[in-house]
Amino acid sequence: MPAAATVLTDRGRATRDRIVAAAATLIHERGVAGTSLDDVRAVTATSKSQLYHYFTDKSALVRAVIELQVDQVLTAQQPELGGATSMAGLRRWRDRLIALNEQDARGCPLGRLASELTDSDPAARAALTAGFARWQGRLATGLETMRGDGALGPGADPQALALGLLAAVQGGLLLAQATGSVAPLRTALDLALDSVEARTVPLAATRTPAGVDG
Amino acid sequence: MPAAATVLTDRGRATRDRIVAAAATLIHERGVAGTSLDDVRAVTATSKSQLYHYFTDKSALVRAVIELQVDQVLTAQQPELGGATSMAGLRRWRDRLIALNEQDARGCPLGRLASELTDSDPAARAALTAGFARWQGRLATGLETMRGDGALGPGADPQALALGLLAAVQGGLLLAQATGSVAPLRTALDLALDSVEARTVPLAATRTPAGVDG
Repeated sequence: MPAAATVLTDRGRATRDRIVAAAATLIHERGVAGTSLDDVRAVTATSKSQLYHYFTDKSALVRAVIELQVDQVLTAQQPELGGATSMAGLRRWRDRLIALNEQDARGCPLGRLASELTDSDPAARAALTAGFARWQGRLATGLETMRGDGALGPGADPQALALGLLAAVQGGLLLAQATGSVAPLRTALDLALDSVEARTVPLAATRTPAGVDG
Repeated sequence: MPAAATVLTDRGRATRDRIVAAAATLIHERGVAGTSLDDVRAVTATSKSQLYHYFTDKSALVRAVIELQVDQVLTAQQPELGGATSMAGLRRWRDRLIALNEQDARGCPLGRLASELTDSDPAARAALTAGFARWQGRLATGLETMRGDGALGPGADPQALALGLLAAVQGGLLLAQATGSVAPLRTALDLALDSVEARTVPLAATRTPAGVDG
């Protein structure tokens, strides 16, 4: 019986993951309001009792979707996000984001969720806020490294700069989505990166070779 | 009969405006997907034939809502948007946006529409793109004035700066909406305005008295 239970657990996890992945795709295409639990059941060929076994209600499924999207969005930016510990590293991260969104112009799944979820579902909003905080935290870590290295001046605020960069990403993607061109993302990121560069110490780490700062 | 026809036209316009205003409120609260024509009819107490007299389909109503929202969003930023012809004027516009969004944390109606509409409705997307272009154009006009005054260097690109400022507004509002605080809007705008200021000519119009640049 323990072996069977373990098999069931693995199968259970696989089923749960399959449901969350399918729900993420539907929600990214149709929005939360446009996606019913019946839609998710139809796509995943699961029964009502199976679905409710894993998720007590739609909000629980939406939270699982948000957690998956946060992981996927952050993973897609690696290794550049982790390597954004210099101006050159930040520019590689910018290039990575532009390349990702040239392939898929549907915008950031987190940004789309943020637009839709605010008032309706406090638990989902908290999950989304935590996701944005993780993203901001990764950027702030790189900027703190830059300040520690002396590349950023002591007056630079890594958390504020990280929040400003994240806002540039989200606003740039939103306008990219509206216009069908990645150009607004590039312009928004370049403007925000100029502000970071304005806080660098002259003759500092902005000109180190690419391999040194990773 | 001409008099009666005129009365009917005025009444017709009033009815149409009332439908569009009610639809705008519903769509801002529930999204486009979450708002049916039946919902709009119920709130406005109009018949199916009345509604179809003014709007051939839901997409036509959504386009009218977008045009109304663009007008309202731009009007709410006046006179500061039109007066953003100096760094001091840009900062007054920033203060105005922050004040507006401290009162109403539901985010920018255009940003929310942009997140939802991209793939589903090309005509609505075109209306939204035109709305963002109007907003960018207003900002660019002020920045062109600054360049003409010699306040911005000749290498500054008013259109790119305007697009970057608009992205900062949209990204800042999206994160403000997600976190329930206006702080991300302030941080994003300050970072973008720093980039504009970095392109000003030293000792130029940034220090003119407030009354001179309006």
